Amino acid sequence: MKMIPNALGRMIPEEIDGRKLKPFLGAHATHGGGRKAGPPIRATVDYKDKLRSSLDEAIEACEIKDGMTVSFHHHLRNGDFLINMVVDRLAERGLKDLVLAPSALFPCHEPIIDHIEKGLITHIEGSMNGPVGRACSLGRMRKCCVLRSHGGRYRAIQDGDLHVDAAFIAAPCADSHGNANGLSGPSACGPISFALADSLYADRVVVVTDNLQPFPVIPWVIRGGNVDHVVQIDRLGDPEKIISGTTRITRSPTRLLIAEYAARFVRDSGIMDEPEFSFQAGAGGISLAFIQHIAEIMRERNIRSAFARGGSMKYLVDLLNEGLIGYILDGQAFDLAGVRSLRDNPKHIETDPFTSYNYHTKGNFAQRVKISILGATEVDLDFNVNVNTHSDGWLLHGTGGFTDATDGYITMITAPLLRGRMPIIVDKVTTVTTPGETVDVIVTERGIAINPGREDLIERLKGSDLPIKPIEELHRIAVEMTGEPAKPVFGDRVVALVEWRDGTIIDAVRQLKP
Amino acid sequence: MKMIPNALGRMIPEEIDGRKLKPFLGAHATHGGGRKAGPPIRATVDYKDKLRSSLDEAIEACEIKDGMTVSFHHHLRNGDFLINMVVDRLAERGLKDLVLAPSALFPCHEPIIDHIEKGLITHIEGSMNGPVGRACSLGRMRKCCVLRSHGGRYRAIQDGDLHVDAAFIAAPCADSHGNANGLSGPSACGPISFALADSLYADRVVVVTDNLQPFPVIPWVIRGGNVDHVVQIDRLGDPEKIISGTTRITRSPTRLLIAEYAARFVRDSGIMDEPEFSFQAGAGGISLAFIQHIAEIMRERNIRSAFARGGSMKYLVDLLNEGLIGYILDGQAFDLAGVRSLRDNPKHIETDPFTSYNYHTKGNFAQRVKISILGATEVDLDFNVNVNTHSDGWLLHGTGGFTDATDGYITMITAPLLRGRMPIIVDKVTTVTTPGETVDVIVTERGIAINPGREDLIERLKGSDLPIKPIEELHRIAVEMTGEPAKPVFGDRVVALVEWRDGTIIDAVRQLKP
Repeated sequence: MKMIPNALGRMIPEEIDGRKLKPFLGAHATHGGGRKAGPPIRATVDYKDKLRSSLDEAIEACEIKDGMTVSFHHHLRNGDFLINMVVDRLAERGLKDLVLAPSALFPCHEPIIDHIEKGLITHIEGSMNGPVGRACSLGRMRKCCVLRSHGGRYRAIQDGDLHVDAAFIAAPCADSHGNANGLSGPSACGPISFALADSLYADRVVVVTDNLQPFPVIPWVIRGGNVDHVVQIDRLGDPEKIISGTTRITRSPTRLLIAEYAARFVRDSGIMDEPEFSFQAGAGGISLAFIQHIAEIMRERNIRSAFARGGSMKYLVDLLNEGLIGYILDGQAFDLAGVRSLRDNPKHIETDPFTSYNYHTKGNFAQRVKISILGATEVDLDFNVNVNTHSDGWLLHGTGGFTDATDGYITMITAPLLRGRMPIIVDKVTTVTTPGETVDVIVTERGIAINPGREDLIERLKGSDLPIKPIEELHRIAVEMTGEPAKPVFGDRVVALVEWRDGTIIDAVRQLKP
Repeated sequence: MKMIPNALGRMIPEEIDGRKLKPFLGAHATHGGGRKAGPPIRATVDYKDKLRSSLDEAIEACEIKDGMTVSFHHHLRNGDFLINMVVDRLAERGLKDLVLAPSALFPCHEPIIDHIEKGLITHIEGSMNGPVGRACSLGRMRKCCVLRSHGGRYRAIQDGDLHVDAAFIAAPCADSHGNANGLSGPSACGPISFALADSLYADRVVVVTDNLQPFPVIPWVIRGGNVDHVVQIDRLGDPEKIISGTTRITRSPTRLLIAEYAARFVRDSGIMDEPEFSFQAGAGGISLAFIQHIAEIMRERNIRSAFARGGSMKYLVDLLNEGLIGYILDGQAFDLAGVRSLRDNPKHIETDPFTSYNYHTKGNFAQRVKISILGATEVDLDFNVNVNTHSDGWLLHGTGGFTDATDGYITMITAPLLRGRMPIIVDKVTTVTTPGETVDVIVTERGIAINPGREDLIERLKGSDLPIKPIEELHRIAVEMTGEPAKPVFGDRVVALVEWRDGTIIDAVRQLKP
């Protein structure tokens, strides 16, 4: 396999599985071009009755053949039943060489590995959290997997790079026309917009629900006009695992300190006092503590945020109800408070990856966010960030919205300086998920590093009493504590590509020799 | 010009202006095929600031060239300022041979005729209500115009038959990202979804507003991710003429009788007592009276309609508030009560032509409507309906949602037997807008005719005391009153094509020799 360097000097295959790759050129170096995919033109006359009596009948109607691509969304997370159900039935049909294109897989999808080994599935195009990622690291897939961000997945489907033959959309609420949302029913999960691209561009679209309601189901997040078949099954997922209900603020003093530093950094930067303040934070323990701090500053200074980007959870919902934020623009709900608020509060708005994150649009919402708080498994001296592999080389995480969210005004990584006995700040990241040019600030409990390229931020923080240090110093402190960490031993084979938002390849993940 | 017959025996050109035409084959004879248009792929990096300081700057940025197609929506109706403003500026730029593709033109757009004569515009692809239609009838356009229904226009843009180079979207409320709706501001008009296809498929999209609001404008009926430029102007239109505010129930005893017959027909058919009753009626005087009658029957029998299709107006809104209908699914607002209800009532839902009407989808809402009440200029003995031309040959009306709405379970035409000294029921309609196979019932003050093809309806009405008669008898009664009406004198030249929902040509309108 011929390897070529991309703009970061990372070696990527020139071609893999017969597909010629485009090397990464820079975070915003490409400008689109060409035309979006044109889905097949169907006629209403052939859609007088879309209800299928069983999942088997719906699968049969999709005419899935060897080598085709089948897609799913992951809003049911680790409580999802649908992917395993459909994949089992595809195996029973004796199919082979399918491409699985879920927006993400979770530990509950471990049975997929068996189907991969038996030849049903050649590889995954989608996020692999946990066991399936581990299988990928071990080289157990016949072909090379592709990792994409939420926005990158939308782009790939929209642009025709990822053609979906049949999409199966888990719909907590749907009608017989195929109008669907995730707001009610036993498997209610809030947004289901990760499936939007699938519904628009797949050749065949199946809405699978455990909560069939009379027409019209409103809002139609998935529009019936894009749906071929509707089928009712007993249960889409396990509500306990769909929504954890236990999203909690960290109690770790280290992590609480990081959250405090992050909030003080935002305060001292002055961006909160400027018009149209907005923020995006995740649902991790540091992020939740950060949200509490920011809210306190907003109350003190009588500041109202124009909007906050979800994922949503109780803490964000409380701020919306208090009037501290104008809108929640939400891509996924992390707890039941998020689901209920999306259903009941007209200022809690569902967004999809086209609107929020897709690089190939005429602008997206990520560009409007003032501060994005994100986590990482590694950050290196060039501010490159890894969220996919661990320092021991295992591929265990999808990209999520990470790379897309870096389009905000300040992209801030919050992380403890060490995780176990491994430093977070390293000389070179194992895998580049996002390039240093898009990463602005690293906040650890031992100090804060600002990307030297962001002179405006350095200027903004001049008067601050925060422990701002060169990233090299943070790296030195970490290594003094851990010693130089051992590097993982990789084989030559590339088992996964890390695709940048624009479809270029930013890095390649190699097979692990554990 | 070689003329060929279509499935109705109507003579249409084999080819016109270099475009080969597909003759109409039957209302539901075609099944799609091929792929939808793929709009250009753009990148967010080029959309950091979309605000243009003037309409001229926005037009300049669209790089409009001779021969290109420029589009508009018509939700501001006869109060629209934008089309004339843009067209004047395109003329000032010295352009020529443009195609104008508004969803509709109204009497206020009469100045367009001058631009047509001076060579700026070769022809119109869109509805022409009033003076521009009259100019078309007289052969004042260089090329042949195309008339499409609301759903047909969406289809044509979606399928690439009508490629729009630059779309100008009048937006009563918008933000600097291009998110837009019609719910507030001095030019509030309710829905603006006739512009959805333009926003999705045009090469360049300009949102023009007189009410620029902070990001995010919600709901984003037009999504900023599809918008190239945003420009603020003083005023989009004259609110008095955008919303008439005077939609009134007829006082004519003839028309009141027709409305009563229509409602009794619906009652006697039994469809109100079956599950998921729903209806669509327009905003004309007969329709409003019909709505009152239907509401009375619903109250008496304790029936609740699953939904009603708009256009919306006070009478429909009152029923929604009373709880007699579950939802209003609305394509346009006919009065301020409609605008306010759409803004404030979560059960009043904006729909677009993709969702409601497009034949090239996987099903649309029109198929779900139990009874559609529609008007007509002529109906013939084969139940063919004309809504485009008058019996004197003048092209004066667009198709609107007429042909799309015929997909409901019962399509009912309500009309007085005579209009002036002309019979409504004729031997052969001047122009076929929709074929008889899609038209089920004609209700006049002198009797009701059921399409003999609808044996199920004839059966349903067997016990009814309504004056049900063969259509030939209604025709005879009319002609006895008026004498055989004079036929208009047409030239050979085809000045407009009437396109059926699937892109085939159902009829051709010829130049009038008045």
